[in-house]
Amino acid sequence: MSGGGASMDAVDEQRIAELTAMVRAQVTGGSDARLAEIFDALVRHLHAFVGEVQPSDEEWGAAIEFLTRVGQFCTPTRQEFILLSDTLGVSSLVNVLNSGGGEFTESTVLGPFFVAGAPEVASGSDLAAGAKGTPLHFAGEVRGPAGEAVAGALVDTWQSDTEGFYDTQRDEGTRLRARLRTDAEGRFSFWSVVPSSYPIPQDGPVGVMLAAQGRHPYRPAHLHFKIAAPGYRELVTHLFPSGDRYLDSDAVFAVAASLVKDLEHHPAGTAPDGRVVEVPYDSVEQVFVLNTAGGAREGSS
Amino acid sequence: MSGGGASMDAVDEQRIAELTAMVRAQVTGGSDARLAEIFDALVRHLHAFVGEVQPSDEEWGAAIEFLTRVGQFCTPTRQEFILLSDTLGVSSLVNVLNSGGGEFTESTVLGPFFVAGAPEVASGSDLAAGAKGTPLHFAGEVRGPAGEAVAGALVDTWQSDTEGFYDTQRDEGTRLRARLRTDAEGRFSFWSVVPSSYPIPQDGPVGVMLAAQGRHPYRPAHLHFKIAAPGYRELVTHLFPSGDRYLDSDAVFAVAASLVKDLEHHPAGTAPDGRVVEVPYDSVEQVFVLNTAGGAREGSS
Repeated sequence: MSGGGASMDAVDEQRIAELTAMVRAQVTGGSDARLAEIFDALVRHLHAFVGEVQPSDEEWGAAIEFLTRVGQFCTPTRQEFILLSDTLGVSSLVNVLNSGGGEFTESTVLGPFFVAGAPEVASGSDLAAGAKGTPLHFAGEVRGPAGEAVAGALVDTWQSDTEGFYDTQRDEGTRLRARLRTDAEGRFSFWSVVPSSYPIPQDGPVGVMLAAQGRHPYRPAHLHFKIAAPGYRELVTHLFPSGDRYLDSDAVFAVAASLVKDLEHHPAGTAPDGRVVEVPYDSVEQVFVLNTAGGAREGSS
Repeated sequence: MSGGGASMDAVDEQRIAELTAMVRAQVTGGSDARLAEIFDALVRHLHAFVGEVQPSDEEWGAAIEFLTRVGQFCTPTRQEFILLSDTLGVSSLVNVLNSGGGEFTESTVLGPFFVAGAPEVASGSDLAAGAKGTPLHFAGEVRGPAGEAVAGALVDTWQSDTEGFYDTQRDEGTRLRARLRTDAEGRFSFWSVVPSSYPIPQDGPVGVMLAAQGRHPYRPAHLHFKIAAPGYRELVTHLFPSGDRYLDSDAVFAVAASLVKDLEHHPAGTAPDGRVVEVPYDSVEQVFVLNTAGGAREGSS
């Protein structure tokens, strides 16, 4: 494709300004003030985008066709529009806009692999269920804004295996996924395996878009956490082992520097929790700081 | 819904700026420079929109769900994403951006009711084929930039009937639709009936959107024209009879003031072309001025 239209003459600019004003007037006549605010902003930004790139009829037709294919690729188990939102950084942007700010643990996107109602296990359990790879000991601590321990918090954790697959992508039952409770000191721990980076689905129109943009489809390796406790704002976040080659180019832009952690490497032997590990293993600790339910940003919707 | 998020703190603003910069870097790495330009602008404007309205997670989820429904409502004979583009004024904006400017007849959207390869009829024919309503005599003249007559131009015309329906929405064959050729003086004419305003389809998600925006779904009455001649830029336009109550609020924003014309009213009797009309009838004339194929905007895509 060669570039957009020629420069506009005065007549065009006036007609365009009148057109945008007329559309804004029309889309803001509903009874819902928030919807009117959203549509007014949508029309301003959408018209500014189109006015800047000046798409040809063919280019706009291709955009319509792309969006149609994205919608038609969606099924009950595949949400291609969320994937589009993810790969254009909008999901992460919405997440940042709704997060509590820098003094609390940063949140990230939930992603498509969360499963509600995973089995609850005792703290210290091994979630690997036979999955191969380097054993990983994770020790977490959940605190509130004043540093107080959050006891009895419900922690969901889920992650890919060493080949980059979640249990929901295999057919071997729950694995590397569980719910745990924090103890009186706000602590919880589990064994798993070191996760691997993996590609997002590439078989739909978003895959075609990534290829056209010259992008790889990979996410850096990570562990997911979703932490809920009465009186505190729910936290959804990741932890990224340092050194992953995709940390600077996560296909869904969910990496925050504060969530990247070094894994500690250990020789085979008896781990601090008494488990005898017959191969070298890694460990990592993380403190999660929750906002209170009445804290900044709560009730913003 | 109540309004968006709280004001951002400095940490958020920096993280958002970094996020947008990272996304722009990722989406512009392809080999197609025009695509990179488009995606760069898309990310800037999309992130600016989201940053301004600060959607809650629930609001963004509702937006994703709406777009998904638009895509899934599309069929080979129903293009709901084009309807969304139309009803947000984007189709008209793209049309204006690709039109030739004020010295030529203004163009408008093609719309969903054009049929390629309509039967060619002799100039002066009656296209009503028995359709009820006030008879309308249309006399057109096609000229080039220097005022020269454009002989042999191929003119497609199509319109709704007096109840607001196109022939493709009924099952009674071709009606109020034809192709004609201009004569040596660039002239063509036909008889039809005065068209009526009509609603765009409301049974899909776009209909839900219009209702939420407090908008009616009507287009003002109009006749469609598509005029092609060798050496000239093809013109797609409408003619709007004056006085229609929806001229200021066309649901697809295709009205241009220069395309609104008064109909002349006549008593029953012998029309200038010799036809004996037994009821009062209307007439209208229009000069269409085409740009040359090498004129402004041509080759912009």
